[in-house]
Amino acid sequence: MSPTPPADPPRNAVPRPVPFPFPVVAWRDGVVALIDQRRLPGAYAILECRDVPELAEAIRTLAVRGAPAIGVAAAWGLALSWDLSRRAGRDAGDALARLREDRALLAATRPTAVNLFWALDRQAALAERLVAAGADVARAGEALAAAAAELRDQDVSRSRALGAAGAALLPDPATVLTHCNAGGLATGGYGTALGVVYAAADAGKRVRVFADETRPLLQGARLTAWELQARGIPVTLICEGAAGSLLRRGGVDAVITGADRIARNGDVANKIGTYPLAVLARTHGVPFYVAAPTSTFDPCSPEGSAIIVEERDPSEVLECQGVAVAPAGVAAWNPAFDVTPADLVTAIVTERGVHRPPYAASLAGIGTGASDSLP
Amino acid sequence: MSPTPPADPPRNAVPRPVPFPFPVVAWRDGVVALIDQRRLPGAYAILECRDVPELAEAIRTLAVRGAPAIGVAAAWGLALSWDLSRRAGRDAGDALARLREDRALLAATRPTAVNLFWALDRQAALAERLVAAGADVARAGEALAAAAAELRDQDVSRSRALGAAGAALLPDPATVLTHCNAGGLATGGYGTALGVVYAAADAGKRVRVFADETRPLLQGARLTAWELQARGIPVTLICEGAAGSLLRRGGVDAVITGADRIARNGDVANKIGTYPLAVLARTHGVPFYVAAPTSTFDPCSPEGSAIIVEERDPSEVLECQGVAVAPAGVAAWNPAFDVTPADLVTAIVTERGVHRPPYAASLAGIGTGASDSLP
Repeated sequence: MSPTPPADPPRNAVPRPVPFPFPVVAWRDGVVALIDQRRLPGAYAILECRDVPELAEAIRTLAVRGAPAIGVAAAWGLALSWDLSRRAGRDAGDALARLREDRALLAATRPTAVNLFWALDRQAALAERLVAAGADVARAGEALAAAAAELRDQDVSRSRALGAAGAALLPDPATVLTHCNAGGLATGGYGTALGVVYAAADAGKRVRVFADETRPLLQGARLTAWELQARGIPVTLICEGAAGSLLRRGGVDAVITGADRIARNGDVANKIGTYPLAVLARTHGVPFYVAAPTSTFDPCSPEGSAIIVEERDPSEVLECQGVAVAPAGVAAWNPAFDVTPADLVTAIVTERGVHRPPYAASLAGIGTGASDSLP
Repeated sequence: MSPTPPADPPRNAVPRPVPFPFPVVAWRDGVVALIDQRRLPGAYAILECRDVPELAEAIRTLAVRGAPAIGVAAAWGLALSWDLSRRAGRDAGDALARLREDRALLAATRPTAVNLFWALDRQAALAERLVAAGADVARAGEALAAAAAELRDQDVSRSRALGAAGAALLPDPATVLTHCNAGGLATGGYGTALGVVYAAADAGKRVRVFADETRPLLQGARLTAWELQARGIPVTLICEGAAGSLLRRGGVDAVITGADRIARNGDVANKIGTYPLAVLARTHGVPFYVAAPTSTFDPCSPEGSAIIVEERDPSEVLECQGVAVAPAGVAAWNPAFDVTPADLVTAIVTERGVHRPPYAASLAGIGTGASDSLP
């Protein structure tokens, strides 16, 4: 099986005017509407998820991906669960039972991005509290939808804040190397690593980006190039193998990536290929920044070795955009993420500012629940 | 333009019984016959080059690739040039003039692999000597064909010798990580990095290989996986980005690559992505070996910075097997090679044995012409 259907014929599939922040996850008359990222850059299409299994499949097959975006989608998923119960005439107790099942379904989609569990926990706790307080089904549904909307808005405002904090680290002009897609499409709509780029551009800095194409699923080629092009930021695509030559050649001011989960000691799980980039950045004296909202912090992971790294289907390596690239019957190893040790991370940029080593101190108190009040 | 046509439907396109050493470049009744490596692994097809421009195009578009294989193909190219002159009834002087033109045509195909120039120089010098000595056109043609055949046989015997020398460096069982294709398909038929693997297997060692897929042209996925599968060696494909996690996980005994050109100080030009692999191998204490025949040494390059690195068409990055992977109009940077500094190379393995640092001493006297007698 391949989670990525063959790309549509390439064209400048950017709707005009470009909506920004991108409408990555939206609620439309009882459905969760996603930009179908499997079809970019060939087509800009909206995928409508009418029930939670459809949304779970969309997350599993990467129609929506990126840790913060998965969190927003999951929050809307539980609002959708409740709304379906309301429409089916269930009482609050039945709706809560159904919501618990749907929460388990969504939690089983992808193991690494902590924002998924963070968002599910928040919404489930809210539903439990509302039911315990005797709220009726309609009122509870409104509250869950409002919480999902707020979580999305909060992600955008956090991205803007971390973008501004990160932008201050860049010179003018600045050349940034990034990996995978940690942009608007990976978040509520604004972006983390690319949020820094957007904020720098908005602050008047001349910024250009080199983007790793990021095999196997080519999020750099398909998504980062698409959104930078849509936003008018100069972007040059490279294969992962060329990053070493690029950094050695000089002229790159910073490597900036997102994160799928950050441990208490500052170890960072992110898309496979991030760790080699961090090693090369260190080798060449280029700062390596991780840009992520505090919802990406996991106080339950003391260090990176505690983080579960998802291994995906070998077919993703054996194919490229649906075309076989290897002989039939060949084995492949396909870890979706790697863990970059904290000592290679120059700084972690969050909506609270720039965190420097030692991270055990500078990240203390950040993370799921510890510092976030429920809406 | 894309030099790689869409792959044929995948199947186990291995002819039975497998010819080995692979007939990468052969002479068949007045044509140079190549395994068309653009079509592997989907189809095992022979491309017949009837004149030198056809052969030059085959080299340029990677129907035949790999430094030693390009050398063998070029040697046969000048034998073909002479044979066409013989068939056209040209005299020795005209044949020599044509051969000089064809030499220039072949020399302009690809800039980095030094074996190309080495083979062209040998054949051209032989033709000049034969004409100066008054040899007739038919006899000179036989000599050029014999020299090309010997150059191929010599490459195979050198590969076997370097394979045996390298195999002695591997434990039993051994796990090897390689990049691109430095196998039979990249050489006269036996292989350099994979020659070490084949020799180890022939010596009774249990050896398995992890192969980088090697974007943009996927020689690892298409060719290394194909030939290891054909030879019955267990192979697991990974994306370049996963090499860091693999080396960090442990269990890899050696990284072994080929080379396109080796400078006097031991700096190694090889397929883009080799340098990051060498950095990661050093980071994790895994030996990084370069396996190459002495024909890959360039005494005219004192160090790696003197080596011209070919930049290929951006379309190779913007497409994968003929399928667009990025939005239209996006820029890409596509260096075909990188240079690994000698201090990251644990040893260089040639047909003369295992060369250790300091390479200025251990490689002294090796290289084009300096130690090779013309046939």
